[in-house]
Amino acid sequence: MTGADALVTALADSGVSACFANPGTSEMHLVSALDREARIRSVLCLFEGVATGAADGFGRITGRPACTLLHLGPGYANGASNLHNARRARTPIVNIIGDHATYHRRLDAPLTSDIEALAAPNSVWIKTASSSEDVAELAVQAVAASLGPPAGSASLILPADCAWSSAERRASIATAQTAAPPDSKTIEEAALLIGRAQTAVILLGGHACTERALRAAARLAAQGLRIVTDTFLPRQARGAGRFAPARLKYFAEMAADDLKDVDLLVTVETSAPVAFFAYPGKPSMLLPANCRTFTLASPQQNGAAALEMLADELRAPSSGRSAEYAPAPLREDALTPKAIGESLARHMPEHTIVSEDASTSGPAIFAATVNARPHDWLMLTGGSIGQALPAALGAAIAAPERKVVAVTGDGAALYTVQALWTMAREKTDVTTVVCANHSYRILDMEFTRTGAGDPGASARRLLDLSAPRIDWVALAAGMGVPARRCSTAAEFDRACREAMNEKGPMLIEANLGG
Amino acid sequence: MTGADALVTALADSGVSACFANPGTSEMHLVSALDREARIRSVLCLFEGVATGAADGFGRITGRPACTLLHLGPGYANGASNLHNARRARTPIVNIIGDHATYHRRLDAPLTSDIEALAAPNSVWIKTASSSEDVAELAVQAVAASLGPPAGSASLILPADCAWSSAERRASIATAQTAAPPDSKTIEEAALLIGRAQTAVILLGGHACTERALRAAARLAAQGLRIVTDTFLPRQARGAGRFAPARLKYFAEMAADDLKDVDLLVTVETSAPVAFFAYPGKPSMLLPANCRTFTLASPQQNGAAALEMLADELRAPSSGRSAEYAPAPLREDALTPKAIGESLARHMPEHTIVSEDASTSGPAIFAATVNARPHDWLMLTGGSIGQALPAALGAAIAAPERKVVAVTGDGAALYTVQALWTMAREKTDVTTVVCANHSYRILDMEFTRTGAGDPGASARRLLDLSAPRIDWVALAAGMGVPARRCSTAAEFDRACREAMNEKGPMLIEANLGG
Repeated sequence: MTGADALVTALADSGVSACFANPGTSEMHLVSALDREARIRSVLCLFEGVATGAADGFGRITGRPACTLLHLGPGYANGASNLHNARRARTPIVNIIGDHATYHRRLDAPLTSDIEALAAPNSVWIKTASSSEDVAELAVQAVAASLGPPAGSASLILPADCAWSSAERRASIATAQTAAPPDSKTIEEAALLIGRAQTAVILLGGHACTERALRAAARLAAQGLRIVTDTFLPRQARGAGRFAPARLKYFAEMAADDLKDVDLLVTVETSAPVAFFAYPGKPSMLLPANCRTFTLASPQQNGAAALEMLADELRAPSSGRSAEYAPAPLREDALTPKAIGESLARHMPEHTIVSEDASTSGPAIFAATVNARPHDWLMLTGGSIGQALPAALGAAIAAPERKVVAVTGDGAALYTVQALWTMAREKTDVTTVVCANHSYRILDMEFTRTGAGDPGASARRLLDLSAPRIDWVALAAGMGVPARRCSTAAEFDRACREAMNEKGPMLIEANLGG
Repeated sequence: MTGADALVTALADSGVSACFANPGTSEMHLVSALDREARIRSVLCLFEGVATGAADGFGRITGRPACTLLHLGPGYANGASNLHNARRARTPIVNIIGDHATYHRRLDAPLTSDIEALAAPNSVWIKTASSSEDVAELAVQAVAASLGPPAGSASLILPADCAWSSAERRASIATAQTAAPPDSKTIEEAALLIGRAQTAVILLGGHACTERALRAAARLAAQGLRIVTDTFLPRQARGAGRFAPARLKYFAEMAADDLKDVDLLVTVETSAPVAFFAYPGKPSMLLPANCRTFTLASPQQNGAAALEMLADELRAPSSGRSAEYAPAPLREDALTPKAIGESLARHMPEHTIVSEDASTSGPAIFAATVNARPHDWLMLTGGSIGQALPAALGAAIAAPERKVVAVTGDGAALYTVQALWTMAREKTDVTTVVCANHSYRILDMEFTRTGAGDPGASARRLLDLSAPRIDWVALAAGMGVPARRCSTAAEFDRACREAMNEKGPMLIEANLGG
């Protein structure tokens, strides 16, 4: 077998079942090896940012790494911003980055670049193969490293000759370490501090919003504790039957106001909250100066177990309140983010996955779906827009039996619009809702908030997407995805109901005016 | 004034006249400052790869840097692959990369990343401002560094507080060093070696295919020397009145075969040619083992002057042959890359700029336009596809009076398809020709050439764009660009003639079957 075969076999043996790929000449032997490995589903993406975002969505749903197949340094760079988001989500991903043959690199052919330098900032593990005999073992190491803790992107750079030269198959299989709970002393100390505090808040981040973690959080809420989540989580279990914690607000002054009376913050898989951006004359830390912070579980620890231990320690009730399926009645008025959320709450089937990247429309949609059927919500963890569509694609490949909804701003969707084509090709059950406000609306707000004054003509043009207005129905059709445009709440509700009841890719342009 | 004002003023004072931007919250003060600087045209791009590719096109046409405005590390990363191409083209570009406020960075907010690490591989100069008072001087340094020699991307990282805090204006203005010609001893030595060689070839690269350089090269050709260019040049003057050198072939074995009798290679702004990729069992160097290489002018030197000096030294005739306007007659048959090139040759107005990124269709189109009216051709210098549309956009902003034609593969065009929207918004005079063969056709060839065997079902799906087929007319309409689809040579010729005779953005899908 070739090094490429050894690599692909080792990945499959270690549980990798999907490859999001945009290969080039230097990766042809990997493409050939994927042909021979039935356990890995190869998915072509027409831009690497789609491939990496899809791997992120896949990893968030399965807890296992998908691999990406990327073409040298530029191919990696095209995928780097969604890997930035994945780094913040601590998603396991294995990047296979093709490179020139070992002896060819020193010649500085046009595609040569310093791949290790490019990939290091977003990788928890990075190595370059030097021989086809290394490759299988490096693949196993990469899978293990991606699973952590801390989980993240493991990047294996594969010179072409290490792929095409022959190799013996290695038999080892990657094993994951499980995140350990904190020790009992930490739990006792937390309980003690909570007992002494006037206003304690438990802040959930990372993977501490699973069903299990939320059951424990509900018990703590029933005990009288305030439970709040980070503004952006990799994944949150929501809807009927799940406890609905408060969410830290995006705008720093609002978040700080919500926290102004807190004298103890207990963190679970996260750290003390900070402003998303700095603003002139405003504090970057959101907690009051006299607030103590206590780490119940670090991001490398098992937050769900920690919450259970704390609930037991505090002798909290055995269960707490959870949301019920209670959709709002349909209102026949202007289409707003709230109306979009209410329609989704009405029609999303059980176990829908929502992949959201809508800076200004997202919060209202999120709030309006709290009483939907049980579902999972994937958020923009790293702030780099263009995540929703690729992550929805990856989630749909990970869970073909579940409905997936991508909720995206129009500005964000344009970043990785090529994802629509792969949704069409793979016939994924993804409904994309484009919240089309025809501007970088968040920046209209931020321009003033940062003290930059009033935008003049040139500045307004840098924040505006309305001239010309993007025709999302045409764009989707161009990529093979059926689409419709809705401009009223009733139109949207009908389109949403249909999309939720049918299978396959669909796009709804929610025209929010402006 | 703010640091942002000081920066923008310094850039404008130093000759920067265009800014290709996709700003975010941390760049709002720069957007505000651009409002107040009438000398810089701000152009919104809906993805950073469009912004950087546009800056590359702008710089190749004007020889001066445009600036980009990018949003922290992820914004930079999205633009990195076209900056890789620009690095290979040695195009002057000034990247302004916004970052969190200096005091905010240590808090590791979601968008925090190691920007210097990400940007270093593609930058000739990189600095991070630490105070608003530094900013203007750093801007001047960045412009000067971008102009070289060697020219390239200068990256200035600007923390938000360095933009919003107040600053005194600095008065210095960036001055460019001009590339020096080689000394006379080098010229004499070259002439001596050429006199002794059996078969000498002069290889032109870098910026040694300007009109001036080609006039000197034509004299050398008239003296009996073989003149060959690199496969990919930043810019080549072509068409009627210009000398047409041979072009080094893309496929290594063909290039090596063309060079097999050469015993002296004289390089001008380039180095000894190497294979674009390595292939099992094939040499990476294209020259025969006994061939001597002599550097007439390094990439940092003035190749045109060197060619003139050499022509004088060799007492070459005072002028040589050049191409004439001699378009092929229209043939009513299947649409092929050759037919596309012949239509372009027939209809392109004088001084058209062609921005090409079509791996398989490009060479035939290039060959068929040798007898077009005088024009300039921009090539994919770094091998990272997705360059043609953004570079065409930037070229059109640089030279509004010239017709620009983007010639692109369908796979390549999808990488930075968002460029179409900016072409529509800015009403640029760009005709985009999508060579739609509905596959990564180059990889169909490379799969076999790399010895990966015959692609099976899974491999074929990773090379294929036909299921579903992209509808380029719909995609263009979605972005506001009028478009038509052509499937015969006659249809294409009519559409091409119309597009060349009208002003404004237009897209032609050249359906090459398959």
